[in-house]
Amino acid sequence: MSHNIIRKSILKYSDTAFISAEDSLSTEEPLEILLYAQKNGEPFSKPVSITMRTPGHDTYLAAGFLLTEGIIESFTDIDYIRQSNENTVNVKLNDNYKTDLSKLDRHFYTNSSCGVCGKGSIENLKCFQPGLKITNDTKVSIHSLLSLNNKVKEAQSAFNFTGGIHASALFNSEGNLLDVFEDVGRHNALDKLIGKYFLANKLPFNNHLLFLSGRSSFELIQKAAIAGFPIVAALGAPSSLAVEVAEELGITLIGFLKEKTFNVYTHPNRIENVSLNP
Amino acid sequence: MSHNIIRKSILKYSDTAFISAEDSLSTEEPLEILLYAQKNGEPFSKPVSITMRTPGHDTYLAAGFLLTEGIIESFTDIDYIRQSNENTVNVKLNDNYKTDLSKLDRHFYTNSSCGVCGKGSIENLKCFQPGLKITNDTKVSIHSLLSLNNKVKEAQSAFNFTGGIHASALFNSEGNLLDVFEDVGRHNALDKLIGKYFLANKLPFNNHLLFLSGRSSFELIQKAAIAGFPIVAALGAPSSLAVEVAEELGITLIGFLKEKTFNVYTHPNRIENVSLNP
Repeated sequence: MSHNIIRKSILKYSDTAFISAEDSLSTEEPLEILLYAQKNGEPFSKPVSITMRTPGHDTYLAAGFLLTEGIIESFTDIDYIRQSNENTVNVKLNDNYKTDLSKLDRHFYTNSSCGVCGKGSIENLKCFQPGLKITNDTKVSIHSLLSLNNKVKEAQSAFNFTGGIHASALFNSEGNLLDVFEDVGRHNALDKLIGKYFLANKLPFNNHLLFLSGRSSFELIQKAAIAGFPIVAALGAPSSLAVEVAEELGITLIGFLKEKTFNVYTHPNRIENVSLNP
Repeated sequence: MSHNIIRKSILKYSDTAFISAEDSLSTEEPLEILLYAQKNGEPFSKPVSITMRTPGHDTYLAAGFLLTEGIIESFTDIDYIRQSNENTVNVKLNDNYKTDLSKLDRHFYTNSSCGVCGKGSIENLKCFQPGLKITNDTKVSIHSLLSLNNKVKEAQSAFNFTGGIHASALFNSEGNLLDVFEDVGRHNALDKLIGKYFLANKLPFNNHLLFLSGRSSFELIQKAAIAGFPIVAALGAPSSLAVEVAEELGITLIGFLKEKTFNVYTHPNRIENVSLNP
């Protein structure tokens, strides 16, 4: 088994009962690339990118990123490339590297990550207020959970045509579909859903459930927490960091939601009649 | 049908023959958020984010993004929010908005997008050299294409355990698997694959095929083109912009690759014995 898999004890619902089981999660951690170059003969360093990735082959990741994002063009642009710690790769560019750095600046667009720049630790990726904890005791029934997928499928406009779009859907705790947004980017579909209710001054979602049509990541669970969701149910697998942050923030996280089965990764107390089959 | 779907004529392989068909693609376009605020009593503007999204509900997307990335905290932080053109949303923050802007700067990490910042047009998202065109006449057989998925499944280490990871795989044109990388982020898996061969000074991939375990986006096709791939075969659907850029760059793009069927979106000439069933 890969060292990039984390084992986690979960509850698995299948055939009218919960069983205790172990599940394997793919590791998700932030990587920072630190670029070193010369500027008017002076050494110069610049943090280039934080990407949430599965650890391993990080120098390949950094080199491939720099090439395919147009930052370097040739093998000879790189003087050295080495991992300085588990979540940072240093790339020294050749002194003859030609791109002028003011142009380089224009080549980067900004994207928010809550003070992560130059830090590269999970702690600093967090966008929520320290101490944020979802504590409400909203409950959802097993019957409601198993019905979510079909309700979203019926409501989705584009998915059935293209098979290429993600959905984020809002349900009340009785399992009634209230809203659904779709996007090629899963974080965009969720931002649209949350943004609508934020602009109407209707947050937090105290008694609601968030449905995700794909996998759950750190980023999505963090967004859900900021909007107040006590329960998140996803069709796909969660990452290691999605489970970690859901545990910490008090969110009930469900994955692999199908018509007859699902996995509960954190805080099962919000599911009605949870009982463990001996 | 949603206005966010684009119709495209494709070749569909099914049951030993190609048929001409129409497919629906989800629209993918860049969105820029322009933030307006006060700095020491002076008006100040800042481009915040370019995200590749499906157009529609863009003010919701901007508001949700700003909230869930920790840039604003309250409904009252926003003075107004409005779409200034089809790919730009302007957000004016209240003059009492408290976050100081030097802190705001630290809140953004850089991520490359090849001069996109402040432009928001597809033309400026392109990281490749003007005039880049994949012209080699590498061919792949239908038999090889249909075998790719199982070969990758056998080689993948983590996917079978977690169900939560993307793969990018390198094949030669005979359909032999040469390498595979996995990551929670699909762009990372591809960057790792390309980075390995870039660092070994073995690019471009003239006579190779790229296999993607999920959907194909603009970003992935652009990366593939920079690495020289003439053929990209994906298990999932392509976005509108993935098809557009593959068409322009001369890449043969295959989607919905299954054990017996697949769709050809662009440049079918690289598939052996392509013939259209009348």
